[in-house]
Amino acid sequence: MGLRLNRGLVLMSDTRTNSGIDNFSTYRKMFHFCTPGDRMITILTAGNLATTQAVISLLEERSKAPEDRAPSIFEAPTMFQVARLVGDTVKEVIADQSEAGQAAEATFGATLLVSGQIGQQEPRLFLVYPEGNFIETSSDTQYLQIGEIKYGRPILIRAYDPDLSFSDAIKLLIVSFDSTLKSNLSVGLPIDVQVYEADSLELGHQFRIEKDDPHFQAITKGWRAALNDAFADLPDFDL
Amino acid sequence: MGLRLNRGLVLMSDTRTNSGIDNFSTYRKMFHFCTPGDRMITILTAGNLATTQAVISLLEERSKAPEDRAPSIFEAPTMFQVARLVGDTVKEVIADQSEAGQAAEATFGATLLVSGQIGQQEPRLFLVYPEGNFIETSSDTQYLQIGEIKYGRPILIRAYDPDLSFSDAIKLLIVSFDSTLKSNLSVGLPIDVQVYEADSLELGHQFRIEKDDPHFQAITKGWRAALNDAFADLPDFDL
Repeated sequence: MGLRLNRGLVLMSDTRTNSGIDNFSTYRKMFHFCTPGDRMITILTAGNLATTQAVISLLEERSKAPEDRAPSIFEAPTMFQVARLVGDTVKEVIADQSEAGQAAEATFGATLLVSGQIGQQEPRLFLVYPEGNFIETSSDTQYLQIGEIKYGRPILIRAYDPDLSFSDAIKLLIVSFDSTLKSNLSVGLPIDVQVYEADSLELGHQFRIEKDDPHFQAITKGWRAALNDAFADLPDFDL
Repeated sequence: MGLRLNRGLVLMSDTRTNSGIDNFSTYRKMFHFCTPGDRMITILTAGNLATTQAVISLLEERSKAPEDRAPSIFEAPTMFQVARLVGDTVKEVIADQSEAGQAAEATFGATLLVSGQIGQQEPRLFLVYPEGNFIETSSDTQYLQIGEIKYGRPILIRAYDPDLSFSDAIKLLIVSFDSTLKSNLSVGLPIDVQVYEADSLELGHQFRIEKDDPHFQAITKGWRAALNDAFADLPDFDL
């Protein structure tokens, strides 16, 4: 999930990947491309792990090989161009994987969130589809989700506010994640968090929340208790 | 949605159907088959409207024509046999629609909840798949959902208790529905509710909640306010 706030960006991703229910593991789904003072770009991934790993590897390789640096994620002049570059890379990887071998195009799908800031420009947040095209947050909808989005969406819709503090934004994302964790096995801890302060142009606060993190525990337990209290306090439905 | 409680069954269904976003309308998705003193059966439908209407019409027609009454929903000896009959009818309708004409089998899909009580037997609740097979609630999972299930599931998982009163069960279903209503255009008011008291073997309390229903408004507004309060009261996430 990604939230675009007035004070910057807050991004959160889980680490569960699975192929069937007996083959699951922990993989990072948050990747940073940062040149302090020039640009800070974060990519979150969802979908086919082979596809997303290939996309990230290609973006990294191409940013390292000097003769291959244009187009590179470190050279793109705007976040829009970064999103295009990521979209083209996704499309290329999926086309490549679908070209020969088994015909199973759908399962190669992957969706990415691309966010960050370049120079004096505004921080931006994009959602890149497996087809390579993408959408951006608008002033009305300033959050985007990829992956297993439905369980956690109602609280996001209700509580999101562009003026949220970073601490409240993290609380909101944890509460939203917790709804999904309770409902779906394909999402699991630990979760990675990044807090990017607008115009800082550096990696900023970036950390991982493990299952036994006391803050995480306090928030999810508090939320469950508060939900039960809130439910008990509702006016009766008079039969 | 259907909840199996110690004191009976509570069922709730919305009425929104759509084919694309500019062709939506209100159709009842809750159907009763009741012989007071002998059996009370309720079917909720989700999925392709042509399929679900054909299934309900076939079940009704066959229960009326004397020479065609066996198997009939009014003659089946157990709820298990009722679920089998409904499953066979779904399978028959889908097979019939898929046989000739356009090859678009997936879009003919429909899922049904079949619930009720026959004679001295226990009240039961089944979910019938488009393939015609079905599952039943267990002592661990005593609620079932069909249609757009994900948005409303987290609160159901958290607050369901088999000892709920009928009034609390309706509150829970309204709160769960409200999460979906806020998130998805394919679900809409009015909603139909049925409260079946175990061993009554009659239709029981059955009513429709319209958008401006004061109880519904009080509960959904109270819930939104309570969620915001609960969120504000959560312990801070210390950065």
